[in-house]
Amino acid sequence: MAIKKLILDLDTGIDDALALAYALSQKKADLIGVIASYGNTQVEIAAQNTLDLLSLLGHKDIPVYIGERKSLEAKSFETMEVSKQIHGQNGIGDIKIEKSTQSVQTKNGVDFLIDSANEYAENLILVPTGPLTNLAKAFKKDPAAIKKIGNTTFMGGALTVPGNVTSFSEANINQDPLAADIVCKNIPNLTMVGLDVTLRTLLTYKESRQWRNIGSKAAILYAEMLDYYIKAYYDLDIDKQGAAIHDPLAVGLAIDPSYATYISLALKTVYDHTKDYGRIIGDEKKLRLPTDTKAAVNVNAPRFTKHFMDRIDEILAHA
Amino acid sequence: MAIKKLILDLDTGIDDALALAYALSQKKADLIGVIASYGNTQVEIAAQNTLDLLSLLGHKDIPVYIGERKSLEAKSFETMEVSKQIHGQNGIGDIKIEKSTQSVQTKNGVDFLIDSANEYAENLILVPTGPLTNLAKAFKKDPAAIKKIGNTTFMGGALTVPGNVTSFSEANINQDPLAADIVCKNIPNLTMVGLDVTLRTLLTYKESRQWRNIGSKAAILYAEMLDYYIKAYYDLDIDKQGAAIHDPLAVGLAIDPSYATYISLALKTVYDHTKDYGRIIGDEKKLRLPTDTKAAVNVNAPRFTKHFMDRIDEILAHA
Repeated sequence: MAIKKLILDLDTGIDDALALAYALSQKKADLIGVIASYGNTQVEIAAQNTLDLLSLLGHKDIPVYIGERKSLEAKSFETMEVSKQIHGQNGIGDIKIEKSTQSVQTKNGVDFLIDSANEYAENLILVPTGPLTNLAKAFKKDPAAIKKIGNTTFMGGALTVPGNVTSFSEANINQDPLAADIVCKNIPNLTMVGLDVTLRTLLTYKESRQWRNIGSKAAILYAEMLDYYIKAYYDLDIDKQGAAIHDPLAVGLAIDPSYATYISLALKTVYDHTKDYGRIIGDEKKLRLPTDTKAAVNVNAPRFTKHFMDRIDEILAHA
Repeated sequence: MAIKKLILDLDTGIDDALALAYALSQKKADLIGVIASYGNTQVEIAAQNTLDLLSLLGHKDIPVYIGERKSLEAKSFETMEVSKQIHGQNGIGDIKIEKSTQSVQTKNGVDFLIDSANEYAENLILVPTGPLTNLAKAFKKDPAAIKKIGNTTFMGGALTVPGNVTSFSEANINQDPLAADIVCKNIPNLTMVGLDVTLRTLLTYKESRQWRNIGSKAAILYAEMLDYYIKAYYDLDIDKQGAAIHDPLAVGLAIDPSYATYISLALKTVYDHTKDYGRIIGDEKKLRLPTDTKAAVNVNAPRFTKHFMDRIDEILAHA
């Protein structure tokens, strides 16, 4: 199998930070760049966090691009209070991390995505783990290019379980339901990795202890981030048993779909403010048509978590 | 394979009438009785329709039991206007059908279900195609008996697609969400057959023509019912291409699950009036626990419809 090219679109974010390390550790995919998004934090903070984490992990050569700073319809974006509670004021659990010597690229994230789609086409894997604004914007700008992308696997939505913002809306989709609807209806080979599966993949203090025991600077900082995240999940009563590694699961399934089971379902997103705003759901108009859109509905959590930990251990040990 | 015993719980209803004929035509299951429910119409009308249809189809020996006349929490039940538009004033497309010489049983439907559960246990298949009130009531009265039932496959809910009463509530569940929640959380080997799959199985005027061509009294009356149903779907803009055979699909999957694909998911129903009332959805508290509850998420519609038509043709030709 040829090595695929991978682009992450992150609103970095603690679980985005985990997804970044996991992506860097993959043998079957080559991370060629990261687009920053607003979401868990402001886009500039997400970009800086990404640069700093890449440097910490020994990959400061990987370029970071600034994406959209707000949703398609909003005038501005302010980080939600609950995002600060889950991810810390600085987005990465308030850990103190050395500033990278690198800067963000001058090209913007949307253009980087379009150019990469043209260059790598079906060999390109895209994994957005925040709002889908960058992808929707790129599609609106150059649909032909974006349709070339081989596989887009996004973390977002809640199809068969309640949402985490409202009972039917998940945070990433809720940030920009219009963008999500554009993505649902237009992006080929789309896979949704929602709360349906991510709430089944938890990390606990056992895993952060394992990282702390590795002893490297990166391992200790990642352990501190994870501890912050687990404590937030506990304090906010999201989950008393651990913290869901939403974003790493999307990276994992993008590269090796075999960790999960899927249903084929054409999707849509409700962006009408008078109705169930921010809900991603099957498109009843397309139920009897073929579709290449899938939603992950179950996951082999022990198998995935083992692979995740094995890969993360290796990268943290060598960083 | 031993012949299973089958009980239907019908709010008869045009697609219930189709489900009844389909159940009678099954070779792998023996219909031992029908419980009538309120829903598409009043319970007494549903019971009389069932008696008359059984007589029409040459099975007037099969007993019919009166079930609950309203939901667990309501003081009374009135047929919804839209139900009359879909199913006709008399519940069966306003066809004129000869009155059966039989009467309903004196034993009530809830007790019949409990007694049958004790008698047949794991050999009993229960298929409720209306509100889940009778089953919930029977469970509350004798949980040990009801837990013996081998397989309960209900038509109701909308998990991965929008509902048909509200955007997240389907009509059967919406009639009695508390009963549905009791069923979701307590009934073993439970299978949900919701709009997710039933909207994919349509009948059209081609099928009613086929029945009319058979020429028997039953075939012509069934063709008239189906025409009424298809026209209602068209006029109410539910589906311009045909009418969904919701209830027969539940009967079909109860007896031969291989027509559909399923996900394993512990379910709950929201019955709190302040929230998304009437929604059936995965129970986020049980996501990491094993479950014997399943939801059908896709169906081989051509294969199912062929089997349905083959069986119905045979019973209508001989009625």
